[in-house]
Amino acid sequence: MTQPHDVTDQTIRERLVPFPKAHFLAASDLNPFVTPQLLDLGDAFVDFNRQSSKALDLLHGRTVVNLFFENSTRTSSSFEIAAKRLGADVVTMPVGSSSVKKGETLIDTAVTLNAMKPDILVIRHSASGAAELLSQKVGCAVVNAGDGRHEHPTQALLDLLSMRRAFGDVTSLTVAICGDITHSRVARSNVAMLQMMGARVRLIGPPTLVPGDADRWGCEVFHDMREGLAGCDVVMMLRLQLERMAGALVPSTREYFRFWGLDREKLAWAKPGARVMHPGPMNRGVEIDSDVADDLDVSLIQDQVEMGVAARMAVLASLSARWGDK
Amino acid sequence: MTQPHDVTDQTIRERLVPFPKAHFLAASDLNPFVTPQLLDLGDAFVDFNRQSSKALDLLHGRTVVNLFFENSTRTSSSFEIAAKRLGADVVTMPVGSSSVKKGETLIDTAVTLNAMKPDILVIRHSASGAAELLSQKVGCAVVNAGDGRHEHPTQALLDLLSMRRAFGDVTSLTVAICGDITHSRVARSNVAMLQMMGARVRLIGPPTLVPGDADRWGCEVFHDMREGLAGCDVVMMLRLQLERMAGALVPSTREYFRFWGLDREKLAWAKPGARVMHPGPMNRGVEIDSDVADDLDVSLIQDQVEMGVAARMAVLASLSARWGDK
Amino acid sequence: MTQPHDVTDQTIRERLVPFPKAHFLAASDLNPFVTPQLLDLGDAFVDFNRQSSKALDLLHGRTVVNLFFENSTRTSSSFEIAAKRLGADVVTMPVGSSSVKKGETLIDTAVTLNAMKPDILVIRHSASGAAELLSQKVGCAVVNAGDGRHEHPTQALLDLLSMRRAFGDVTSLTVAICGDITHSRVARSNVAMLQMMGARVRLIGPPTLVPGDADRWGCEVFHDMREGLAGCDVVMMLRLQLERMAGALVPSTREYFRFWGLDREKLAWAKPGARVMHPGPMNRGVEIDSDVADDLDVSLIQDQVEMGVAARMAVLASLSARWGDK
Repeated sequence: MTQPHDVTDQTIRERLVPFPKAHFLAASDLNPFVTPQLLDLGDAFVDFNRQSSKALDLLHGRTVVNLFFENSTRTSSSFEIAAKRLGADVVTMPVGSSSVKKGETLIDTAVTLNAMKPDILVIRHSASGAAELLSQKVGCAVVNAGDGRHEHPTQALLDLLSMRRAFGDVTSLTVAICGDITHSRVARSNVAMLQMMGARVRLIGPPTLVPGDADRWGCEVFHDMREGLAGCDVVMMLRLQLERMAGALVPSTREYFRFWGLDREKLAWAKPGARVMHPGPMNRGVEIDSDVADDLDVSLIQDQVEMGVAARMAVLASLSARWGDK
Repeated sequence: MTQPHDVTDQTIRERLVPFPKAHFLAASDLNPFVTPQLLDLGDAFVDFNRQSSKALDLLHGRTVVNLFFENSTRTSSSFEIAAKRLGADVVTMPVGSSSVKKGETLIDTAVTLNAMKPDILVIRHSASGAAELLSQKVGCAVVNAGDGRHEHPTQALLDLLSMRRAFGDVTSLTVAICGDITHSRVARSNVAMLQMMGARVRLIGPPTLVPGDADRWGCEVFHDMREGLAGCDVVMMLRLQLERMAGALVPSTREYFRFWGLDREKLAWAKPGARVMHPGPMNRGVEIDSDVADDLDVSLIQDQVEMGVAARMAVLASLSARWGDK
Repeated sequence: MTQPHDVTDQTIRERLVPFPKAHFLAASDLNPFVTPQLLDLGDAFVDFNRQSSKALDLLHGRTVVNLFFENSTRTSSSFEIAAKRLGADVVTMPVGSSSVKKGETLIDTAVTLNAMKPDILVIRHSASGAAELLSQKVGCAVVNAGDGRHEHPTQALLDLLSMRRAFGDVTSLTVAICGDITHSRVARSNVAMLQMMGARVRLIGPPTLVPGDADRWGCEVFHDMREGLAGCDVVMMLRLQLERMAGALVPSTREYFRFWGLDREKLAWAKPGARVMHPGPMNRGVEIDSDVADDLDVSLIQDQVEMGVAARMAVLASLSARWGDK
C-alpha cells in the first residue's frame, strides 16, 4: 500500500499503464499482470485526490459521455468526478431526458453519440450485453458501468483496491459474497476479478437467490451464513434487488434480515478482524445492520466510494494511454 | 457601493475574506463585521461578471457538488454558474435522477458523496435542518441552498447585496416582508440578516400566513398592507407557496391579490422611491402585479438574480479561503 | 471541401467570421455571402475534432446556457459538446428539473437566466416564435435550437455542411424533402437555407402532411414518391411526428411505410449516386428502412450528427466574434 506523499503529475505519468483492451466491458479484459499496476495507479490517484487541489490534464481536450439508461447517483457522479479531475469535458445523460423516450433504440443513440466523436462512452443499461453490443458499433472506448445481471467491472476493480489497501495484499484473502447473487452483476465481476488475483471466493445466500450454475463459477456455495462466514477475511454484502423481484421469493425483509442480514452477531462468525463491504446503496435493516455498516473499524463501505473515484480515474487514464496523441 | 472598474484577480484576492464558519447553514453563521466584507467581495464579482470574459481560478481543481432534493432552475443554475466562473468542477445532481428513488436516505447519499472528496456540497432539501444534519456527517464545506421552512441564507446575502447597491447602505432601511411568512425560509433568513445589519424589518400578511411566534422575531407584525407599508424603503414580496398549502387557508388567488398582492396602488403606500423585491419564481397576478414587477425603476427583481451569482461566488470563494492549499 | 490537415487555433481564428446578426433565430439571419464562410469554418472544426485532443479557448470564460423545454439527447448534447470544445462553461437545463413545473413563464425563466449574465442562450421550445420572443427580452445572444413548427436553423446549417462535404458544392443540387412537411421545423429551415444557396428544393408527402401554402414556399410539391424523387441528388427524410398527430391522418405506420417510407426500391427512383439524409431520431421501418439508413455508401445520417457538433461550433464561435472582448 502506498504511503501518502506528494503525488505530482510526473509520478502519475510514470505509473500510467496502457489498458490491455480497447474497452473495459468485463473483468476478463484485465489480467493478473496489469491489474496490480492499475491498482498502483489507483493508489496514486487516492493520494492525489486527498492532497492536491490541482486538476490533472491527462484527459484535457477529451470528451467523456456518461450514458445512464438506469439511474445511479453513485456511479454516475463517481465517473463524472473522475473524468473531471483528469481534465476531461464530461457530458452526462440521464435516461430521463434522453431520446430513449421517443422510441430510439440503444444502438441508434450510441451511433448518434459516437458521431459526435467522444473519446470514452460510459454506459449503464438494464440489458446484459448492452456494453459489448455498443462497443461493436462505436469508434470510441466503452466502459461498462453495469449491464443487467452481467458485469460491473469498475466496481470489482474499486473493491479490489479497497481490499488491497485494507489488507496489503489480496492474493491470500478469503472473500464471502453474500445475499442476492442471482441478480448481481457486482457478484459476477468480483468473482472473476478476485479469482484472477488468486483470492478464494465463497457465495452465501438462500437457494432461491443463488444461481443454479454457481458451482461452475469456481466458488464454494453456502446456504448458511454461519458455515459460509467461518474463516473469511472479507464479508461483501450485496444489495437486495427488491425492485427486480416478483415478490414470491422473499417472504419479508424482516425474515430476510433474520437469516441473511449482516449484524454484529453474524459478523463474529467470520475471521477476527474481518472487514465488511457493500457496493451501495444499502437497504439498512434488510441486508445489513447500520451498527455494522457505520463502524469504521470494520466497514470499508465509505472507503469503497472514495476508491471508486480513484479506480475510475485509473481506468480512464489507462484507456487514454493506449491512444497516444489523437 | 463599488463603481465599475477593471477588476483583476489581484483585486478580488485582496478582498478575499475567510468565511467565519466551516459551513454556511444559516444567517447566524455570519456576523456584522464579516458581512460587509462579503458584500464588498460580491460587488467585485458583479463588476467581474459584467466586464470580463476571463475565468477565475480561485476554485481550480476543486469540486462543487450541487445536491438538489427539490427542483430549482434558479438557485441550482446560480450556484452552478458561480462555481464554474471560479474555475471549479461542478457536479449537479437533480433529485429526479438520484438514488433517492431507490430508497437511500439523505445521510447515506451525503456520506457517499462525501467519500468522493468534494470540496463543497450545496444542498437543498424539503426538511428543515437537513443542511445542518449533513454538515455533521461530511468532511467538506456545506452550503444550505434552502432547507424546508428553515433558512436560505445565500438568498438573504444576495438580497442584502441588492439593497446595498440600490441604497448605498442598509443599516438605516425599513424593510417590509410581505405575504406567506409561515412557509418562507427566505423570510427567516432575511429577518436574521437584516436585523444583524441594523435594519428594521416588518412582517405583513394575513393572520393565517404569519407564524404565531412572529412577535418574538423582533419584527413589527401587520395584518394590513396600508399600515405595514407606511414609511418602508423596501417591499419584499414572498412567493405564495400554493403547492404547500392545503387550500383552506386562502379563499382564492384573486381574493389574495386583492388584499395582499402588490400593485401600483399599494406600492404608493410605501415611502416615495421604495424598491420592490421578490425571490422568484413569481406568481404574477397573485402576490405581485406584472406592472410593478417589470418596472425597472422600482423593481430590483432582475438585480437580485444577477446578485445571486455574485453573492454565491463570494460565499464559495470565502469558504475556500479558509482552507489554504488542500 | 477542406482536406484534413493540421488545424491549429491560428487556422481557425483566420477563418473566424463575425455572425451577421446578434442572434441565430432563423435561416434568414444568414446570407449567401457569410454562409459559405461559416461552412469553411465548420470544415475546420470537423478536422479539429477528428485530429486534435487540444481544447480551444475561443469561448474561455464564456457561459453557454442550454434551455431545453423539449427533451432532445441529440441536439442538447451536440450543443453541449460544441460549447465545451470551444472552452465555454456550459449549464444545461432539461425542462424536467426546471422551474417551469412551478408555473413560471418562458419569459420569467429567460429574464431570470439573462440576469445571470450568460453569453449565449440556446433554446428549444414547443411554441413557434419562442426563440425570437426570448431574444427581445435578454441581453445575450440567442440560438434557436427548434421552436415549434417554425425553424431549426442550426440543423439546416449542419445539413448544408454535410451536403457540401458529400458533393463538393450545393448550388446545383436538387434536394427532395420527404414526409411530414407540415409539422417540420427542419423542413422550413432547410427550404430557406437551400434556396438561399441556390439549390432546388422539392417537397414530397401525402396531401394531409404538406401544408396548404407549400406552393408559396418556392418549391415544387409532389404527392408521389416516384415522380418527386426523379432526378434528385439528395433525399432528405423527415421524422414522422407520431407524438404530435391526432391519429386520424395516418392510417397506420405500416401503410405509411408502404407509400412514403424510403427503401431501396424507392431510392432507385432518385438520381444514381443520390445520398440519403435524416435529422433523427429515426422511426425505423416507418419513414425509413434500416437497410438504407445504415448503408454508409448512400446514407449521410451519421455524418449529419458529426457535422452537427462542427456546425454548432462554427455558430457559437462566429457569434462570439461579434463581441470583441467582453
